[in-house]
Amino acid sequence: VNLPPPKVGAPARRMSRSVRKALALCHVLESERGELSATRLAAEVLSLYKGFDLAGQREFFAALMEDFSPSPKEIVSAAADYAEQPTAKNLAVLQKAVEPPRRELFRRLNMAPGATVELVQMRRQLLGQLKANPEWEPMSEDLAYLFTSWFNRGFLELRRIDWRTSAFVLEKLIEYEAVHAVQGWDDLRRRLASDRRCYAFFHPAMPDEPVVFIEVALTRGMAAAVQPLLDPASAVFDSQQADSAIFYSITNCQDGLRGVAFGNLLIKQVVEDLQNEFPRLRKFATLSPIPGFRDWLKTNRAWIERDGRYEGLFASLEYPLWPNDAAHARRLEEQLIPLCAHYLVLARAKGKPVDSVARFHLRNGARLERINWMGDTSVTGMRRSAGLMVNYVYRLEELERNHEAYRHEGKVSASYDIDAMARKGEPATGA
Amino acid sequence: VNLPPPKVGAPARRMSRSVRKALALCHVLESERGELSATRLAAEVLSLYKGFDLAGQREFFAALMEDFSPSPKEIVSAAADYAEQPTAKNLAVLQKAVEPPRRELFRRLNMAPGATVELVQMRRQLLGQLKANPEWEPMSEDLAYLFTSWFNRGFLELRRIDWRTSAFVLEKLIEYEAVHAVQGWDDLRRRLASDRRCYAFFHPAMPDEPVVFIEVALTRGMAAAVQPLLDPASAVFDSQQADSAIFYSITNCQDGLRGVAFGNLLIKQVVEDLQNEFPRLRKFATLSPIPGFRDWLKTNRAWIERDGRYEGLFASLEYPLWPNDAAHARRLEEQLIPLCAHYLVLARAKGKPVDSVARFHLRNGARLERINWMGDTSVTGMRRSAGLMVNYVYRLEELERNHEAYRHEGKVSASYDIDAMARKGEPATGA
Amino acid sequence: VNLPPPKVGAPARRMSRSVRKALALCHVLESERGELSATRLAAEVLSLYKGFDLAGQREFFAALMEDFSPSPKEIVSAAADYAEQPTAKNLAVLQKAVEPPRRELFRRLNMAPGATVELVQMRRQLLGQLKANPEWEPMSEDLAYLFTSWFNRGFLELRRIDWRTSAFVLEKLIEYEAVHAVQGWDDLRRRLASDRRCYAFFHPAMPDEPVVFIEVALTRGMAAAVQPLLDPASAVFDSQQADSAIFYSITNCQDGLRGVAFGNLLIKQVVEDLQNEFPRLRKFATLSPIPGFRDWLKTNRAWIERDGRYEGLFASLEYPLWPNDAAHARRLEEQLIPLCAHYLVLARAKGKPVDSVARFHLRNGARLERINWMGDTSVTGMRRSAGLMVNYVYRLEELERNHEAYRHEGKVSASYDIDAMARKGEPATGA
Amino acid sequence: VNLPPPKVGAPARRMSRSVRKALALCHVLESERGELSATRLAAEVLSLYKGFDLAGQREFFAALMEDFSPSPKEIVSAAADYAEQPTAKNLAVLQKAVEPPRRELFRRLNMAPGATVELVQMRRQLLGQLKANPEWEPMSEDLAYLFTSWFNRGFLELRRIDWRTSAFVLEKLIEYEAVHAVQGWDDLRRRLASDRRCYAFFHPAMPDEPVVFIEVALTRGMAAAVQPLLDPASAVFDSQQADSAIFYSITNCQDGLRGVAFGNLLIKQVVEDLQNEFPRLRKFATLSPIPGFRDWLKTNRAWIERDGRYEGLFASLEYPLWPNDAAHARRLEEQLIPLCAHYLVLARAKGKPVDSVARFHLRNGARLERINWMGDTSVTGMRRSAGLMVNYVYRLEELERNHEAYRHEGKVSASYDIDAMARKGEPATGA
Repeated sequence: VNLPPPKVGAPARRMSRSVRKALALCHVLESERGELSATRLAAEVLSLYKGFDLAGQREFFAALMEDFSPSPKEIVSAAADYAEQPTAKNLAVLQKAVEPPRRELFRRLNMAPGATVELVQMRRQLLGQLKANPEWEPMSEDLAYLFTSWFNRGFLELRRIDWRTSAFVLEKLIEYEAVHAVQGWDDLRRRLASDRRCYAFFHPAMPDEPVVFIEVALTRGMAAAVQPLLDPASAVFDSQQADSAIFYSITNCQDGLRGVAFGNLLIKQVVEDLQNEFPRLRKFATLSPIPGFRDWLKTNRAWIERDGRYEGLFASLEYPLWPNDAAHARRLEEQLIPLCAHYLVLARAKGKPVDSVARFHLRNGARLERINWMGDTSVTGMRRSAGLMVNYVYRLEELERNHEAYRHEGKVSASYDIDAMARKGEPATGA
Repeated sequence: VNLPPPKVGAPARRMSRSVRKALALCHVLESERGELSATRLAAEVLSLYKGFDLAGQREFFAALMEDFSPSPKEIVSAAADYAEQPTAKNLAVLQKAVEPPRRELFRRLNMAPGATVELVQMRRQLLGQLKANPEWEPMSEDLAYLFTSWFNRGFLELRRIDWRTSAFVLEKLIEYEAVHAVQGWDDLRRRLASDRRCYAFFHPAMPDEPVVFIEVALTRGMAAAVQPLLDPASAVFDSQQADSAIFYSITNCQDGLRGVAFGNLLIKQVVEDLQNEFPRLRKFATLSPIPGFRDWLKTNRAWIERDGRYEGLFASLEYPLWPNDAAHARRLEEQLIPLCAHYLVLARAKGKPVDSVARFHLRNGARLERINWMGDTSVTGMRRSAGLMVNYVYRLEELERNHEAYRHEGKVSASYDIDAMARKGEPATGA
Repeated sequence: VNLPPPKVGAPARRMSRSVRKALALCHVLESERGELSATRLAAEVLSLYKGFDLAGQREFFAALMEDFSPSPKEIVSAAADYAEQPTAKNLAVLQKAVEPPRRELFRRLNMAPGATVELVQMRRQLLGQLKANPEWEPMSEDLAYLFTSWFNRGFLELRRIDWRTSAFVLEKLIEYEAVHAVQGWDDLRRRLASDRRCYAFFHPAMPDEPVVFIEVALTRGMAAAVQPLLDPASAVFDSQQADSAIFYSITNCQDGLRGVAFGNLLIKQVVEDLQNEFPRLRKFATLSPIPGFRDWLKTNRAWIERDGRYEGLFASLEYPLWPNDAAHARRLEEQLIPLCAHYLVLARAKGKPVDSVARFHLRNGARLERINWMGDTSVTGMRRSAGLMVNYVYRLEELERNHEAYRHEGKVSASYDIDAMARKGEPATGA
Repeated sequence: VNLPPPKVGAPARRMSRSVRKALALCHVLESERGELSATRLAAEVLSLYKGFDLAGQREFFAALMEDFSPSPKEIVSAAADYAEQPTAKNLAVLQKAVEPPRRELFRRLNMAPGATVELVQMRRQLLGQLKANPEWEPMSEDLAYLFTSWFNRGFLELRRIDWRTSAFVLEKLIEYEAVHAVQGWDDLRRRLASDRRCYAFFHPAMPDEPVVFIEVALTRGMAAAVQPLLDPASAVFDSQQADSAIFYSITNCQDGLRGVAFGNLLIKQVVEDLQNEFPRLRKFATLSPIPGFRDWLKTNRAWIERDGRYEGLFASLEYPLWPNDAAHARRLEEQLIPLCAHYLVLARAKGKPVDSVARFHLRNGARLERINWMGDTSVTGMRRSAGLMVNYVYRLEELERNHEAYRHEGKVSASYDIDAMARKGEPATGA
């Protein structure tokens, strides 16, 4: 390839040699001239990119922003034409003018073998630098725009993960699991035993990379605590006796796909598949963390401390051995559960529930079913929610109704008990 | 699903019930509310669509144009804001304003199982109605925009087609082959014998539908005539003795993908793969039709008849038995080959070669190598080009150079012989 | 390989060079020395064998009989030792003495890639020469002994054949179908439509070669005639409405596996699989030919003609146009059906039913359910059984009982109607 | 199934109920009556068998020996007939008489799904009881006879094992590896990295159970020590730079297949495959233990101690810290290597080399190439061979010659150096 001459008159940009080379190849690739050799050019650019350190990535991103953004002049001119004559042709010209050349560049980069993984990786690295360079946001959005199209549900493949899956993929599960970390292969093996199910979405162009995965336990009765489920030494339950499917972990694997949602699709699909495989299942529920509860307690310390019902609460919580002290623990349970119900059902930030996990499941149309004392006694569980966990129930026939009520009225669908407790947990009059 | 009430005040549209239903579902699907049930809604819409007759399709297309086009008012307003303040945020708003809601609708329709095939089909049917309804062009472009993204080379899978392929796919080859029709299974079997290769691109979401396929014969010497290659009774050649790979047919299978090009990528890939499998291959060439030659002769009849060298040409061509008359045939050969060289190398329409097949291969960087007398003696071959065929040679190392010269200077890369003949074939001075 | 010297003193055998070479390689292969290079040696022998014409095969078979038979002297000596002292050790020696070295030779020949197909072929050719060389029977039995072990049900794979199957395998079906010949690909396609099922057993070492296959039609009511099932233009029935599965063809594909039975295993397996896939199926029945009926009529012409009930029968049958003559046909139907019932239920040869197809299904435990007039109007059907066909019903729960009764008491399990007719069809007293 | 009545007059056998039931089912299964329901009967027997404890197995084995052995009376009678008239027919009768009914029973047991694994398991358990019940040897031989036929090379599938293999199979490798135990998944992962190869033979009826596997390291130069190869933290070598393939572990996985050899076939196949994949490989060699060396030293202590060259040898070896003491170690190296060469090349038991690993590779036609000091410094390596290891080289073109020389003349093929040392290591005159 003969690289194009540097732009005349442009101020010299400080770029390392390999960034300069990658950029020059990008220019060829994005031009009509690159069409014929796109596969090779794309592979070269991505190979160079992989060699960049953080500084190199920074130079590269900055240059892409500079060289492959839409031209304001063209946009303004096309917009003016359209304003004057809103014809289909003028609209097409305007559409073309606002489309960042980066998108076409990224589309062509994707022609190299294995490129999709690399582009998802590139966005991950871009997101990592967004705080320092907020002006790159549009480029991140361009990638997200493409990913939304490429990772369309119609292209995703649901695969069951079990002990017959390749070590290559299983290793990824160990690496990615974010909710309850996998402690090595024996732990993983237990999570894939015959009373468990694990499913993931895969994209055909990334056959070894799960996009999102979910872990399910088949149980009798709705599980209230996660440690028994995570115990590698626990006995394997006869799945034919199960009446409940407990979703105890759902993990988005690809940071680079942030904002391109799949979790809700996966849950719905898995509920349907499990119903077919086990017609006796009566309940589909999560066993979920409440990540923001203790932070919220702290923020609301003022009124809680003023409320007689919660006397001594904060002192008790600070006493590290309270879980071993039955009286302490009982007292805390009586105080925390109504507060937690209040937190989940009534507390709001920007009009939405404060808790991020609650927002996810409620938006999906699930309903808050039960708060579980000592549900997660891990260090993290204690630190984030004093050990509390919650079950969200997925009933296919009410998902859409709940979803609508949540979106339009902000209504939190909850069981009678939780609703009642939430109201009880409210600040006393005058608080 | 509770369908939304009809728009108040809108003039009643005449639509059959099922079109009305499909349209209502489209509105739900495209709204946020549809997110949760997208898969099911999409499946319902596509199922209704499949039941539409031509009139129903027409109603549906018209309604999609009406209801899911961008709002000129919003565009103009966003354009004005941008013109005043060309910020990233205003650009994003403008981008959103010009993006037709149809695109998101089509993206969501694609979430149903098997939807991709249906959407490709939908565009095929849309294209069929474009002549009568040119105002639907933007909708066709929206689908093309999505297809370009979805059918990215990085997502296409190259598969070899042979006698081990499923009858399901083989049947599609018989159905789609457009260059030299397949005369049943015996003919197909011969085309997949050990001295032949057939490759196709497939998309993971359409595993039984080839996107484009190519047929190759492994030969000794560059084949000059296609009938021997098509003869089901011809002897199978020992492919290890081959020094040439002859691409004698390339077929785009999906009319709905018109304008989304793959043929050039397929040829390049196949050249590379064959080089690996058969290191002794020295020549990669097509054996191609010249579809526009006789039409061009007619159009240029005036000057040709004036030119003494071509005396009697048209009369001879009209004599149906000339191929059986050696003297006639020899005379015609002497006259037609220089004219054909002229037609391929020098004749221009809008600055480009007149012949559509020539345009395709020249744009790919191939070079015109040889014109073959009696290359295709089928009825079609005689009618379109008086039996002439041409070999285009693909040399990987010169593709890019030829492509550039073709695009920028309109240069037709041709062998010395053809170049010389083309000049000889030119109208005599004064013509 | 250094071939061993010719046996001293042995009379010169007249063998072509390549047979001599193959034989010498067999000697090396069968010896301990051949162990290390067995794969290569076996491949060479089989490649030579494939080049033999009939005469070469004859020489080769004769030589194998001569050189690789057990030694009578050794047998007699080992037998004497055993008679004197029937110890485990002496038994082992005797077992070794009676085992023909051919078996080990064939086992080692099987080590070459693709050898199993070749050995099955070899037995087919051997069987073809058995009539002329009955002394080779033991060698055919040695192969059968090995095949019984190799083609154990535990090693066979049941595969469904449909339009997604490779053309390679489908073509074999067209080639092998012996009951109702397949008239090309369109006919085959109809036989694999959604209201049909086709299953085959495959052996892992012969992945492209079906061992036995069965064709099933899903119907409403028990089919009485085969031509409607074979009609490529017949409408496809909605298989979810079916209450019957009709086995209308079962074909053993490999002549070389004669005597190694699979048909009964296949039918049982398919009945079980279909019951799982279509719980509404109530009846599993064949629609079978009666190949020996008209031959039997001829053989029994004497008494039949004497019996007043059958007056004019033979004359009518000889009148070729009787199927078109309603009166004739009705009369024949009244006469032939009782005779056919008699033939199937009561006629015996060597204590067993005369009809070979009847023997097969009755031995499997099926029961004779119905005789069908004009069941097969093809030339063959008319010639063999005057167009009659029969349904055998497979009821899983009674197969074993019927099988036992058939084997021990020779009892033919039949419907009440057929039983009654069979008795009516019997020769009149004194006949 | 109606079970047959107990044999009249037979002395009551003491068997647990489930053994009795299994045995009764075996009788039905082996009879003609069982043919039709063989699959189900076999599955029942194997399911019962799996529930047996050691005592139950013992009862079952004893009963099989009693009930399914050939009849001495029949054998003697058939033998007498044959001695009188050695016809093909009489031979067939005798062959049938000496064939233990157990073989047919085992063949039919194999018809159940998954039965092959169970039968291999059964023989493993039988072998475990042979010492206490040597009279069951013939039954073990019957199974071996069948396995030899079933596990014919032509039916085995060579599969590469790598990190894409299922965890199910990989776990088996960890479990079975007998030469250098695998220390968990990280160790295994290193052994499957890109500079390693692992291959296994699989049988189609046991798709998750490797039959035998081999581990190979691609190196530059012939590896002399195994610890660097086993180090999970060792750097991955660029396999394209390798000139040697080192077989550092070969493991027979199935004890139940004892005596049915595959290891030599696997090595040869892998050498061929590696040569194709890496044409630059020049050397194919093992890095093998010398398991019997120190035992042999002890047995031969008398003459060694008398020989002045080996003064202090035994005392040094007993000093546990000698490997850390350079002077000691150097002295031991000088003494042990010639003795080891002598042990490998010249020491004999029953005419064959004393060392079991040496016997295996020499029989395969490999040659002793080099003795490696401190080749295996593991506890086992030190205990068995004072840390010595040996390379056997596989040269395809000389395997057969070496094999022949070894088998007929007992010749140990060794490098010049080892040969020379072996002679030097010999007992001094008079020893």
